[in-house]
Amino acid sequence: MSERNRTLPRVGMVGGGQLSRMTHQAGIGLGVHFSVLAADPSDSAALVCGDVALGDDRGLEDVLAFAEDRDVVTFDHEHVPEHVLSAVESAGGLLRPGREALGFAQDKLRMRTRMGELEAPCPRWRAVTTLDHVTSFAEETGWPIVLKAAREGYDGKGVWMAGSAEEARRVVDRAAAEDVPLMVEEKVAFSRELAVQVARSPHGQVAVYPVVETVQRDGICHEVIAPAPGLSEDKATGAQQLAVEIAHALGVTGLLAVELFETPDGVLVNELAMRPHNSGHWSIEGAHTSQFEQHLRAVLDLPLGSPRTNAPFTVMANLLGGEDPDVYSRYLHVMAKDPEVKVHFYGKDVRPGRKIGHITVMGEDHRDLLERARDAAAYLRGDQQ
Amino acid sequence: MSERNRTLPRVGMVGGGQLSRMTHQAGIGLGVHFSVLAADPSDSAALVCGDVALGDDRGLEDVLAFAEDRDVVTFDHEHVPEHVLSAVESAGGLLRPGREALGFAQDKLRMRTRMGELEAPCPRWRAVTTLDHVTSFAEETGWPIVLKAAREGYDGKGVWMAGSAEEARRVVDRAAAEDVPLMVEEKVAFSRELAVQVARSPHGQVAVYPVVETVQRDGICHEVIAPAPGLSEDKATGAQQLAVEIAHALGVTGLLAVELFETPDGVLVNELAMRPHNSGHWSIEGAHTSQFEQHLRAVLDLPLGSPRTNAPFTVMANLLGGEDPDVYSRYLHVMAKDPEVKVHFYGKDVRPGRKIGHITVMGEDHRDLLERARDAAAYLRGDQQ
Repeated sequence: MSERNRTLPRVGMVGGGQLSRMTHQAGIGLGVHFSVLAADPSDSAALVCGDVALGDDRGLEDVLAFAEDRDVVTFDHEHVPEHVLSAVESAGGLLRPGREALGFAQDKLRMRTRMGELEAPCPRWRAVTTLDHVTSFAEETGWPIVLKAAREGYDGKGVWMAGSAEEARRVVDRAAAEDVPLMVEEKVAFSRELAVQVARSPHGQVAVYPVVETVQRDGICHEVIAPAPGLSEDKATGAQQLAVEIAHALGVTGLLAVELFETPDGVLVNELAMRPHNSGHWSIEGAHTSQFEQHLRAVLDLPLGSPRTNAPFTVMANLLGGEDPDVYSRYLHVMAKDPEVKVHFYGKDVRPGRKIGHITVMGEDHRDLLERARDAAAYLRGDQQ
Repeated sequence: MSERNRTLPRVGMVGGGQLSRMTHQAGIGLGVHFSVLAADPSDSAALVCGDVALGDDRGLEDVLAFAEDRDVVTFDHEHVPEHVLSAVESAGGLLRPGREALGFAQDKLRMRTRMGELEAPCPRWRAVTTLDHVTSFAEETGWPIVLKAAREGYDGKGVWMAGSAEEARRVVDRAAAEDVPLMVEEKVAFSRELAVQVARSPHGQVAVYPVVETVQRDGICHEVIAPAPGLSEDKATGAQQLAVEIAHALGVTGLLAVELFETPDGVLVNELAMRPHNSGHWSIEGAHTSQFEQHLRAVLDLPLGSPRTNAPFTVMANLLGGEDPDVYSRYLHVMAKDPEVKVHFYGKDVRPGRKIGHITVMGEDHRDLLERARDAAAYLRGDQQ
């Protein structure tokens, strides 16, 4: 084994999606040995990574074998089953985040219970198994309410709004039939959605990014403005402190994204993710240390980098596929029209509604940036001709 | 073949060094299909690239085969022999830069002759085959003079300073014995060295970067300050225009680096390189579009990105290997000491004097930045304990 291999750590990421792809990109600069466990050679990360293990990124045998050759294993999604995580840890594998921390990102009931213990502000919620539970909850909060599958939900999947007992019944019946644990939450009258990302290393060092505004559409993060315009310093600091406290209390290693509702009475914790997150893609250009580099530094217990921003505002817009798969010819026009717009492609086949990339613009006027990012995304999607 | 493959271009880079590695990193964001022709799986780019062809990156058969499957072929060095380039072009391969343009970067005599035709300011020079030629040249310019191998020189290799006829004799004799075409140049009394990078696309679009100051040591680019401190706007614009004229006149596609001597009477052209260049590494963080992304955009005839800077100054210092191969433990200290310093590792085994990475720092005070970059490089090399 060469000197190189003896001295720089080997990190493996489970999952071959775009988060893995962009983490690999950051790892090239860091000089670490990055590898990915991907289901298919055409996976976003597998297309560009120099060290790809093919296998089931949720399966016991494949994840175990993958962990064996790596100093540290981390994840681009939360869907590795708990018994697989346990097996890897029992075999001496170093998971970051670890099984216990990940449990709070995998299971919304466990997360809500823990948030309650920490007295972190949350929407009112309840675990439910019958329609009666739901309707009695709704009597307290009013309709509509939000029903959530406690496990396996992401990107708006496993979340249903119900405006009446009739609407709730369909969800409750299906969840019972499929044995999915269910919970109900009040529909928060939020003024906007925010997110905070914090990196935490095993040493306990933390680096926290500015609070960002996120615009969701159809349950998918659509646009991000960093930092959140017009947020007072007090509120921003408060939200950052909340994220840091959660990271410490849950023993997170790596990136933690805390999605928040902003209300007139303060913020409420909506969701947690323990990995690089769509709300942090702006940081590739917009911050001194991108979330992807920071995640690697954190899981490898390297000193963290500065999360300082590079511009007054950075705006990110997701790029969704449209009807026409030929994005390339439109790509040329977007590049020609605005030489400062950054388009990131994930190497994915174009399908309507699929996240195939994102767009970043930096500058001083967030309204102008948002307009330019939206323009580029709409044009690439094929909405504007 | 998927929609994706039909629409995004395939670009191959000949050579598996750090320039290829960092070009691959930039290509991930662009979404292009990047592949590399590398001699060895442990080559800097081969370690991280998802599509690696192994072969002789100067050999006829391997370069031909590599070009066959790519829309565009580009280079991370100038050492592919002219007959190989010709064969690829004859077979319909698209080389960018093309064989003819590359000839001016491969052959210093051809370059100097062409610069003369363009009336670009150059040091006095002459092609020489005998010691008499050298001494008669030195009678005009005075000793010392600089002897250069017209071909295959890079990074200070193939360049010899001679202070006397006796010293020149050794070089002339060896060049004659090895059949190396030789030239002589005056030793320019420069105040400092500068460099300009310009990207040119087949369409003829150009994007020019700020003029930078380069500090050479032992014939190797050691440090870069972008932009060059204290350079008047007139001089800077003049140097940029010179670089653009050269790019157009030589029909360059991709990046062109023009290395310059600054003298009290103006600038003189020292060397040309037609690829991403050490003098442009600062642009990864320091410019809106890095030289690596820009090179890909240019060779693919995509609209070019903005070369605007992200900070008043960006300083780059090369990281050379020292006696102790264990850079990793020192890496931690550098990261901890200065969370804003960016270290880029090339994945190479540590050997004394070998370029194993570089360091970038951005900010307002170039003296402070230079000190921090030097500190980090010296510490990583093992000079400071």
